[in-house]
Amino acid sequence: MQQYIRNNDKTLMEEYIRFLSIPNVSTDTFNILKNAAFIQEMMLRRGIKAELLTGTTQGVTPAVFGEIKTPGAKKTIGFYAHYDGQPVNPKQWSEGLEPFKPVLITAPLESGGKIIGPYKNGEAINPGWRIAGRGAADDKAGVMAILNAYDALVKTGKRLKVNIKFLFEGEEEVGSIHLYEIFKENKSKLQADAWIIIDAPRHASGRKTVVYGVRGDVNMALTIYGAKRPLHSGNYGNWAPNPALNLVQLLSSMKDEQGQVLIKGFYDDVTPLTETEKKALAQIPAQDALLKKELGVIAPENPERSLVEAIMLPTLNINGIQSANVGPMASNIIPTKAEAVLDLRLVKGNDYKRQVEKVVAHIKGKGFHVVEGEPTEEERSKYPNLIKVEVKHGYNAQRTPMDLPIAKSIQAAVQSTTKEPLVLIPSMGGSLPLYLFEEILETNVITVPIVNYDNNQHAENENVKIQYLWEGIETIAAIMQIK
Amino acid sequence: MQQYIRNNDKTLMEEYIRFLSIPNVSTDTFNILKNAAFIQEMMLRRGIKAELLTGTTQGVTPAVFGEIKTPGAKKTIGFYAHYDGQPVNPKQWSEGLEPFKPVLITAPLESGGKIIGPYKNGEAINPGWRIAGRGAADDKAGVMAILNAYDALVKTGKRLKVNIKFLFEGEEEVGSIHLYEIFKENKSKLQADAWIIIDAPRHASGRKTVVYGVRGDVNMALTIYGAKRPLHSGNYGNWAPNPALNLVQLLSSMKDEQGQVLIKGFYDDVTPLTETEKKALAQIPAQDALLKKELGVIAPENPERSLVEAIMLPTLNINGIQSANVGPMASNIIPTKAEAVLDLRLVKGNDYKRQVEKVVAHIKGKGFHVVEGEPTEEERSKYPNLIKVEVKHGYNAQRTPMDLPIAKSIQAAVQSTTKEPLVLIPSMGGSLPLYLFEEILETNVITVPIVNYDNNQHAENENVKIQYLWEGIETIAAIMQIK
Repeated sequence: MQQYIRNNDKTLMEEYIRFLSIPNVSTDTFNILKNAAFIQEMMLRRGIKAELLTGTTQGVTPAVFGEIKTPGAKKTIGFYAHYDGQPVNPKQWSEGLEPFKPVLITAPLESGGKIIGPYKNGEAINPGWRIAGRGAADDKAGVMAILNAYDALVKTGKRLKVNIKFLFEGEEEVGSIHLYEIFKENKSKLQADAWIIIDAPRHASGRKTVVYGVRGDVNMALTIYGAKRPLHSGNYGNWAPNPALNLVQLLSSMKDEQGQVLIKGFYDDVTPLTETEKKALAQIPAQDALLKKELGVIAPENPERSLVEAIMLPTLNINGIQSANVGPMASNIIPTKAEAVLDLRLVKGNDYKRQVEKVVAHIKGKGFHVVEGEPTEEERSKYPNLIKVEVKHGYNAQRTPMDLPIAKSIQAAVQSTTKEPLVLIPSMGGSLPLYLFEEILETNVITVPIVNYDNNQHAENENVKIQYLWEGIETIAAIMQIK
Repeated sequence: MQQYIRNNDKTLMEEYIRFLSIPNVSTDTFNILKNAAFIQEMMLRRGIKAELLTGTTQGVTPAVFGEIKTPGAKKTIGFYAHYDGQPVNPKQWSEGLEPFKPVLITAPLESGGKIIGPYKNGEAINPGWRIAGRGAADDKAGVMAILNAYDALVKTGKRLKVNIKFLFEGEEEVGSIHLYEIFKENKSKLQADAWIIIDAPRHASGRKTVVYGVRGDVNMALTIYGAKRPLHSGNYGNWAPNPALNLVQLLSSMKDEQGQVLIKGFYDDVTPLTETEKKALAQIPAQDALLKKELGVIAPENPERSLVEAIMLPTLNINGIQSANVGPMASNIIPTKAEAVLDLRLVKGNDYKRQVEKVVAHIKGKGFHVVEGEPTEEERSKYPNLIKVEVKHGYNAQRTPMDLPIAKSIQAAVQSTTKEPLVLIPSMGGSLPLYLFEEILETNVITVPIVNYDNNQHAENENVKIQYLWEGIETIAAIMQIK
C-alpha cells in the first residue's frame, strides 16, 4: 500500500488540489453542489456508482452515497466523511494563504513554516509538507482518503471480503441539520454492521487513534428580568433588584469552585465506564502539562481531574454572559435584564431533555418563576424573580462499546498499520449527532481520525500534513479488508 | 411675590423660551458658549455684573459668576445652577417635540398630554402646563429661577440683608470635570456662608424639598482572564477554567441575597445618622409602593429596607457584565475573559479610596492575583486566577448637618413659602461632586430642588411644570431674604 501511494502520490495530489479549490462553505449552495458533483466524478472514476441522497424537505444539501457489493460478503462497513467546511474570513489568513487557493507549506506558518506555493503538477512531493486551505483537514481529507483507499485496494488487486458503503455529507458544519431526514428516508440503503466516521484529528501525540463515542449537547439561554426601565444606580441602587446580581448568584449556585456541578442529580444518569474504557483512558498519553503551557493557565477547574477524565463527565459551561455594558459604554445604572448562555455536554446515559429539566428544577428551587417571554404586567405583579429559559436544539451522546466484536476487528485493522500502540478514546469531548447512526440506522459507529492535531480546524490557515493523508489511506484500506 | 410673577409671567416665559432654544449639550462648545453669553446678558439686564471663571487648563467651559454686595450684610449666600444639558437623540423624542425647539404641552405626552405648540409672545399662560425641551428642568430652570428671584426682589423693592453670589456651571453633565480647578483658582471670590444648589427635582409627593447631602461615587472595572484563546467547550469544558464562572462566583461572594454587601468592613466607616436626620428620614413620604408598581418589581433587594433607608448606606451595584456573547452570536466556547463594572456609592464617613481597597482586599482574599493589564507569560505561569482591577475617578459624599444655624435659616425660609411640611432629605441617592464646596471652598452646601419629579430628566421629552418654575422663584427669593 505504501508503495502504491509512493508511485501515485502526484496523481493523488493533483486531484486533491482540484477538490480543495472548490469553495465549500456549507451555506454557499452553488459551490456546495459543485463539490457534490466533483465527488460523484471521483467515485465514477473509481467504478463506484454514486447517487445523491436528500430528505423530505426542500433545499436539503444532498449527501453523496455509493456502494460496493462484494460477492459472499457477510458484513457491510460504511465510511462517512463530510465535504462542507466552516465559514472563512480570508483577511484572517496569513499573507500568501487563501482559503480556496490551496498551497504547499513546509510547516505551520505560526511555527516558522514557509510557503512553497501552489502544487505544480508532476512536482516531487515531500510528505513532511502540508497543504493549506479550507477543508484540507476538515473534512475533505476524509473523502479523499476513503475513495483512494478503495481505489488502491482495487488497483493493487486486493480482494475485498465485506460490502462497502460511502456517505459524504454536505451539512456537517451547520449541525447536520437534515441528517435525521436523510437517514429516515434511506434507512435500508444505509444499513451496515458499522459506520466509520473519518473526521477529526489524531491524538496530539501523533499516534493513530480510534474514537468510540462523542458527547451529546444542548444549549440553554437564560434571561433574568429586573425593573422595566434602566434605573439610576444612585437613586435606586441597593433597593431595586439588580438582575445582573441575581444572575451571578444563580450561576454561582450551579457550580462550586472545584468545577463540580451542584445541580441535583446532575451526574446521576451517567453510564459508568467499563473496565475496558477505564483502561483505555489510563493509556491515553497525557497532554495536560503541554496544554496548560499553550493556553497560559496553570490550574484546571478541578486540579484533581485530568482532561481525559473531565471529558467522560457531563458539563455545564457558561458560553457567554451579558447585562448592560462594560468598558466605555458602561453607565451607572441598574440593568433591566441579564442574560447567560449555557452549554451542557452530555455523556452516555444522559438524556438531553432530562438534563435540561434538572437545571430548570434548580432554577425554580432558587425562587425563580419561569416566564415564556418578556414578563407581562401580571407576572411582574405576582413573582419577585422572573427568568426566561430557552432551550435550543439538543441531542444525546453516542458511545460504542469497545468490546463489541466489530469494534475489536476495526481496532485490530488500524493497529495492523502501525507499530506504535493506538490511542483508544472512549468518547471525544466534542459533540456530533452520531446518535442518529444508533437510533435511526440501528447500527454501530466508530470514528477513525486521520489528520494531524495541529491542523487549525475551523480557523484560519487550516492545513493537513501530507504524510497523515497517506497514512489515512493506509488505515482506511486496512479497515476495508476486515472479514 | 406671587402677584409679581402673575404680572410678569409672559415676560419671564418669553425670555426662558429664548434661553431653552440655544442647544446646550455639554460637549457642543460653540453653543455652550452662546448659553454663557445669554446668561451674562440676563444678568446684565438685572444689574448684575457677570464674569467668566475658568481654570488653569486650556479649553475649560467657563462658569458664569456674579455678585451682589449688600451694605452691612453679615452673611453671603451663593446660588449655583448649571446651564449645560445631557446629550439628546431627537429621534427618541415624541412627534412634535424637539430638544431645542421648546413647546408648551398640557401634561406629559406619556400620560395623555397634548402639544399646545411654541409659546406665542403675549399669550396667556396656564401654570398647569409644561415646557418641553432639553434643559427645561435640568437645569436651566435653576438659572432662570435664581436670576428672576433676585430680579423680583429688586423690582418689588425688597431690601436684601445678605450678599448674594451667582455661579452657573457649564460642565455638570460631564461630571464637573473642571470645577475643582475653578474653585482652586477663584477660592476667595467664591467664599460664602452657604452655597445653595438649585438642581434636581422636588420629592415625588410634590412637597417642597431641602436636601443636605449627596452620595460619593467610584467605579471599578474588573476583568478576569482565562486561557489565551477561546476554547471549544466540548474539548476543554470542565477542564479549562472559565473566567465567566470565576466572575459570577466572585461577584456572588460580594453580596448576599438580601442585598447586604459581604465585603469585610464595607459598612464600617459610615457616619451614623443624627437624631435629626433619623427623624427627617422617618417623615419622608414613602414612595416605595408606587415605585414598585411603576417599575414592575414586587420585592426590593432587601424587602426589610425602604428606599430612603437604602440610600443612607454605601452600595455596591453591578452596572454591567460581559463575557463572550449571548443571543444569536453565542457559541460553544470557554471565553478568554469576563468583565464587570461596579458602581460604589458612598455615604458620609466613607473614603472612596478606602472603599476601593476593601473591595480589592476581598478579591485578593478569594485567591485572585491582581495584574495591571493583559497578563504576561510570567503572570500566567505563576498565578491560577488573574484579574485586572481598574479604578475610575471617584469622590466622597457630602452631607451638611441639618442642625447648623445657616441650614436651619434656609429651611425656615423655604418653609415660609408653603403651608405643607417640607420633605427634608439628609442625602440624595445620586452623586454630585459637592464635596468640592466643603473641601476647597470650606463652606456649607445645601440643595434646594425646584422642578417637578416627572420631568424626564436626562431623557427624551424633558419638561418642566410652569407652576414649579413660579414656585421655585418664590422659594429662592425667600432664601435670598434671610438675615
